[in-house]
Amino acid sequence: MSYGDYALHTDKYQINMMYAHWVQGTHNRMAVFEAYFRKLPFGNGFGVFAGLERIAAYIRELRFTEEDVAYLAEQEENYRPEFLDALREFRFTGHLHAVPEGTLVFPNEPLIRVEARIFEAQLVETAILNFMNYQTLIATKAARVKLVAGEDSLLEFGTRRAQEADAAIWGARAAYIAGFHGTSNLRAGKLFGIPTKGTHAHAWVQAHAEEEEAFLRYAEALPDQVTLLVDTYDTLKSGVPNAIKVGRKLAAQGKKLSGIRLDSGDLAYLSQQARRMLDEAGFPDTKIMASNDLDEHVIFNLKAQGARIDAWGVGTQLITAADQPSLGGVYKLTAREKADGSYEPVIKVSGNPEKVTTPGKKELYRIVDRKTRKAEADYIALDGEEDVKQGARIKLFDPIHPYLHKFVEDYEAMALLQPVFRDGELVSKLPSLEEIRLYHKQQLSLFWPEYLRKLNPAVYPVDLSIAAWDKKMELLHRRGG
Amino acid sequence: MSYGDYALHTDKYQINMMYAHWVQGTHNRMAVFEAYFRKLPFGNGFGVFAGLERIAAYIRELRFTEEDVAYLAEQEENYRPEFLDALREFRFTGHLHAVPEGTLVFPNEPLIRVEARIFEAQLVETAILNFMNYQTLIATKAARVKLVAGEDSLLEFGTRRAQEADAAIWGARAAYIAGFHGTSNLRAGKLFGIPTKGTHAHAWVQAHAEEEEAFLRYAEALPDQVTLLVDTYDTLKSGVPNAIKVGRKLAAQGKKLSGIRLDSGDLAYLSQQARRMLDEAGFPDTKIMASNDLDEHVIFNLKAQGARIDAWGVGTQLITAADQPSLGGVYKLTAREKADGSYEPVIKVSGNPEKVTTPGKKELYRIVDRKTRKAEADYIALDGEEDVKQGARIKLFDPIHPYLHKFVEDYEAMALLQPVFRDGELVSKLPSLEEIRLYHKQQLSLFWPEYLRKLNPAVYPVDLSIAAWDKKMELLHRRGG
Repeated sequence: MSYGDYALHTDKYQINMMYAHWVQGTHNRMAVFEAYFRKLPFGNGFGVFAGLERIAAYIRELRFTEEDVAYLAEQEENYRPEFLDALREFRFTGHLHAVPEGTLVFPNEPLIRVEARIFEAQLVETAILNFMNYQTLIATKAARVKLVAGEDSLLEFGTRRAQEADAAIWGARAAYIAGFHGTSNLRAGKLFGIPTKGTHAHAWVQAHAEEEEAFLRYAEALPDQVTLLVDTYDTLKSGVPNAIKVGRKLAAQGKKLSGIRLDSGDLAYLSQQARRMLDEAGFPDTKIMASNDLDEHVIFNLKAQGARIDAWGVGTQLITAADQPSLGGVYKLTAREKADGSYEPVIKVSGNPEKVTTPGKKELYRIVDRKTRKAEADYIALDGEEDVKQGARIKLFDPIHPYLHKFVEDYEAMALLQPVFRDGELVSKLPSLEEIRLYHKQQLSLFWPEYLRKLNPAVYPVDLSIAAWDKKMELLHRRGG
Repeated sequence: MSYGDYALHTDKYQINMMYAHWVQGTHNRMAVFEAYFRKLPFGNGFGVFAGLERIAAYIRELRFTEEDVAYLAEQEENYRPEFLDALREFRFTGHLHAVPEGTLVFPNEPLIRVEARIFEAQLVETAILNFMNYQTLIATKAARVKLVAGEDSLLEFGTRRAQEADAAIWGARAAYIAGFHGTSNLRAGKLFGIPTKGTHAHAWVQAHAEEEEAFLRYAEALPDQVTLLVDTYDTLKSGVPNAIKVGRKLAAQGKKLSGIRLDSGDLAYLSQQARRMLDEAGFPDTKIMASNDLDEHVIFNLKAQGARIDAWGVGTQLITAADQPSLGGVYKLTAREKADGSYEPVIKVSGNPEKVTTPGKKELYRIVDRKTRKAEADYIALDGEEDVKQGARIKLFDPIHPYLHKFVEDYEAMALLQPVFRDGELVSKLPSLEEIRLYHKQQLSLFWPEYLRKLNPAVYPVDLSIAAWDKKMELLHRRGG
């Protein structure tokens, strides 16, 4: 799959600003932008960062085709020919740092930092946010489902309700990062190496005169992994008994009935009855899978009711993040190069206090206690601050209520912003999907359970260094804030 | 853009069912599937069908590449080599009928009808639903916004919050069908010919020492369509006064200040004050645009409060259909070819009465009163029923409460299901986007206002012919329903 076609995957105003910078001769000045979100989705205690593989591919292959340039020229007669030439020669030549995919992330911390000519940094905003917002949203939703499902099998089944084709595959990938075991989407399987799962639909049963015959024919065709959908007519009176009949025929051939799937009705009751019927018939190893508009709340409640379900197919609610279908990630200018070549931190004030930005080019550290191996806080420092890097005693304080503070010294500071592009070159191979999935699991183990729970999680501290705080206050006061 | 890469944009179970049919030798039997939704989104009184252009391109270019086949062979060792050959030779050779994009549509009526070898009809389910569900959802949401906004300018601004890249462009197209005037997404502009709009962001202002300088430089670079974002520092104390200063300089050069944009704060109050300031300064023609998490409810309330806003930038809430981010469209088998070559209607019963399908291959008519030129009801008949086609007296009755009925005779029956593919060939050129947009507008004029209102709309009747009803009852009773 080519990602090459995305130069115009941007808002028109980005090109207009590029042009205006070009006209006034400031387009080569460096700028620092940082991407972050202000609020966690779903009332969750953490987010799961995702989207970087897509972003890296986008940046690497970012070119304006002749067709793109011709389109822009036709849209805006003001664009001068030399500007169009600058687009033809466009390459991303800057630096991009990001937290690795699978990292647990929190509000107001820089997740992606772009340092580039303003000409480049402006163009990439829209696509970076589009990819980061959706994939992080779905990985976060999937992590909620995973924490409820524990070691049960989790399958992503949402393609038909996804918001178009890209959402289906990138959402399946995000779910896999967060611990799902597979997807029904074959394109996601082929592109990303995610295990794919699937058996048959009601239409298969309806295409036969009798349910038993439908089951039998399916088992004959694909005898190694037989999971039968039992709710086409009547789950307990017809579906399960017919599945058991077919299970006996499979057993006689040395094969086995892997599972049955319930897709409607009272899943708690039906799963318990089906389990009893399967056990009594000598099929204790046959798994019960459930689907039908599941999310973390339904799964949690089904488990509390004693449902006997081994595997969950999660569709619409996950792939659209139905209870909050967007993450409000933003991309803000935090520093800019002045005419004399020096960098100047930039603040955006707002009547809305939580929308005031934190100025300056920043680093992000996870402060991990060396004794407990648990994360104490995240710590945002200005670029170049040495004490946290060297493990010196630092003050952690709440940026909203600064009198709440403590000092820490026996810690490891994990630098979360990793270089991805340097001078336009991809710095290193990105991790494989399996590595990302494992890393995510390790990340979870760094956090006390109170930050991870589904309902009313504790608020994990994201603190500013004293220098970052002082710089913010200074600029706020200068702007009359 | 190539759509060729979508053969695996499907659920794994479709391929498994194709294989099982192939093994038992039933893969060439014809089947009729119909796609529809059961419930309107957002409490709206109608849906707006969209997605057909994407579906037609998908079907036309549907091929398994060698890479696809190799992937499938590796996933499932049971697949026999001859089956893989059948995939290599796969073409869609069936018939596809659909209502035209832009049509007002209602629950439980067939929107797409696929009649093909079961081998083909099964494969295309997932992609058809994925495209139809998302695009119809967004067109419907956009129609709600449009009905509230009246003749105001409406711009789609959602790319950064869209659920990945495909949603951004197809959502922009769906919004345009429903009467939006443009999009910020340049890729959508280039691919579909949608007008694109955009000016500058806060970052442009922040990249300058002073707001006035930023406005001036922007106006110098792009003097023909100057809309200035006035809320970076303080809308009424700084933004609007600076915009007026720049407006005066433009006026001195024979140019004009096209507009200002408000992106935060109390949009009702700010727009009224800004309008007053602009008018007093001699800029009565300068438009006021607003953005910031708008949807049909916010726009409705702002207008009720007397906001002076001429143009609306609608983002997140539209592009994700935030209050209901999925349409539950389904694709159900309604008839199948038996071994003897005859067709048999198929029903799917369910404990959930609204999930019982209506069996048989069907046609969909819009019954339009010849005097009022208004739609009276939609009428679902079995394929081949002649009376409605010929305008004979027909009985309209409510399929849930059949005693509610009336007879009509002076009507035009508009056949809504139009041929798109016949024997695998695209029947005719699809309409252009401008034609679709115009057709949608004409569709709206067919409906009494009580069906179109945002809150508590009247329920538009979707009725079954007597023959369709009788067939459904017959099969229900046969299945013991």
